[in-house]
Amino acid sequence: MNILILGGGGFLGRKIASQLAATGTLRGQKITSLALADLAQPAPLEAPFPVTCHAADITDRAQMDALVTAETQVIFHLAAVVSAHAEAEFDTGMQVNLFGTLNLLDRARALGTCPVVVFTSSLAVFGGEVPDPITDWTIPNPQSSYGAQKAIGELLVNDYSRKGFIDGRGFRLPTISVRPGAPNRAASSFMSSIIREPLNGQGAICPVDPDFEHYYLSPRRCVGNLIRGAELDAAALGTQRCMILPGRRLSIRQMIDAMTAVAGPEPAKLIRWEPQPEIEVIVKGWRFDYRPDKALDLGLAADAGFEENVAFYLEDDLPAR
Amino acid sequence: MNILILGGGGFLGRKIASQLAATGTLRGQKITSLALADLAQPAPLEAPFPVTCHAADITDRAQMDALVTAETQVIFHLAAVVSAHAEAEFDTGMQVNLFGTLNLLDRARALGTCPVVVFTSSLAVFGGEVPDPITDWTIPNPQSSYGAQKAIGELLVNDYSRKGFIDGRGFRLPTISVRPGAPNRAASSFMSSIIREPLNGQGAICPVDPDFEHYYLSPRRCVGNLIRGAELDAAALGTQRCMILPGRRLSIRQMIDAMTAVAGPEPAKLIRWEPQPEIEVIVKGWRFDYRPDKALDLGLAADAGFEENVAFYLEDDLPAR
Repeated sequence: MNILILGGGGFLGRKIASQLAATGTLRGQKITSLALADLAQPAPLEAPFPVTCHAADITDRAQMDALVTAETQVIFHLAAVVSAHAEAEFDTGMQVNLFGTLNLLDRARALGTCPVVVFTSSLAVFGGEVPDPITDWTIPNPQSSYGAQKAIGELLVNDYSRKGFIDGRGFRLPTISVRPGAPNRAASSFMSSIIREPLNGQGAICPVDPDFEHYYLSPRRCVGNLIRGAELDAAALGTQRCMILPGRRLSIRQMIDAMTAVAGPEPAKLIRWEPQPEIEVIVKGWRFDYRPDKALDLGLAADAGFEENVAFYLEDDLPAR
Repeated sequence: MNILILGGGGFLGRKIASQLAATGTLRGQKITSLALADLAQPAPLEAPFPVTCHAADITDRAQMDALVTAETQVIFHLAAVVSAHAEAEFDTGMQVNLFGTLNLLDRARALGTCPVVVFTSSLAVFGGEVPDPITDWTIPNPQSSYGAQKAIGELLVNDYSRKGFIDGRGFRLPTISVRPGAPNRAASSFMSSIIREPLNGQGAICPVDPDFEHYYLSPRRCVGNLIRGAELDAAALGTQRCMILPGRRLSIRQMIDAMTAVAGPEPAKLIRWEPQPEIEVIVKGWRFDYRPDKALDLGLAADAGFEENVAFYLEDDLPAR
């Protein structure tokens, strides 16, 4: 089994690679090679099979042709320009998220080998005045260019699969928490940092009230779902190969209570409550009432409770002291 | 008001042009010019304003740049490779339906003039195992490349509108009946020809049983809706600018009864019933249970009954003896 991870330098790509290195198999077969590709060459990875690391730009068709070969059997496509970036730089978002994805799909089509393509979409495809709850049959109505480009990617993955050019499957990721690393300028950044920083012994600011609800999935569970997603039998997917990845709807209060249950009362004391209306206005427009029935039926899973998200962070990502 | 019709040589584009020539106004303003563009140069049209006719290929950005100018205020975008063609020639469908549409949208964006764009989508965006009824909030799940390309066009029209590059609105056309002209090789061809040919005094074959149901709109009402669609206030459209155009769900029996009510008993006698399983298997996969609530709320309208469709054909399209 020869695998390629586009976006293999990102934190999810890296975790997928580590998990594959740990198990050594995918789709019931021994992994024979893994290629990690990202804009900047990913760092080497220890594995029981050969791992190659590539600096590659998915907007360059020739580079994609070199990367995706007749031997490539499974492709995890995580390469993307994220929400705020795609909104600020419309052309960059279109080039990477739309035309980059087309470069991958057209390369696969040209090869005629019908590789498995795992496409990471986002719950950002949903929005606007579409009524709750949001199901797998709800119209994507994105309120960002990132969401629009991901929704277009879903349609392409479905049509290229229907035509037999790829064996695609797409998963709309919930907000990942607890996300490792540093806070960033995304409006959602606090949804990890109010847990991560206190667990690291540092202060954090919560810009919304404790009743604010959102929809979350841990990195570990996300990686497990994407790998399981690569293993799903195409026949089980039906005509719509893209689906909501299961998450948990949680209030900030529930998240903090879970942190306290796992790590004791000290971390919560490091949170300062500072309402930030400019953050609130963005995140209160986001949706949280999802029914990921299809993925649940296919055996994909949410975290059992936010205690798991906290425990997974401590086990997988807590920086060494 | 300067207007451009892409696909201005097709029967709907031509009917829109004739209607504009008859009224002389659009969006409450006097029409000052109309440009008709199609792959083959459209025939001249008599009108109380200047009409220019252009041979143009929407897949050629330079030709689009010449056609769409800072003076262009309203664009009817009907140019497309149709269903069977886009399915047989995947690249052609992508080039015309996806990249051609992008050429238009990117030209409008470059101009910075935010023209009104009326995008003709199709009920072919819906399909697969999505549950009935199909509403404006149902996920497009196309089962053809044509449908996929139209669904992508909808997402682009929405996002380019959200960004202020265009003032877009999209309408998913029901099956048009009674369509003028000759039968073609589309699976839906009989849905017009079983009415049109008998009204013309000619024989026709019905390949499905009288209980077969589908969803129809007359050409006259379709044109009225698209013109009204161009006139809608952007604020009334909300965040989702694409909608199902109202039609009528009718059985073949109801259509023939309406023809008899309007034109007497003779035409129906010209229909031969010859089941064609290869046609049936295609058209029985199509959907007919639609709820076009948004368009109805905005004042768009279905035909009152199929008697109208028959009468409109006799008034508008019956060939001269």
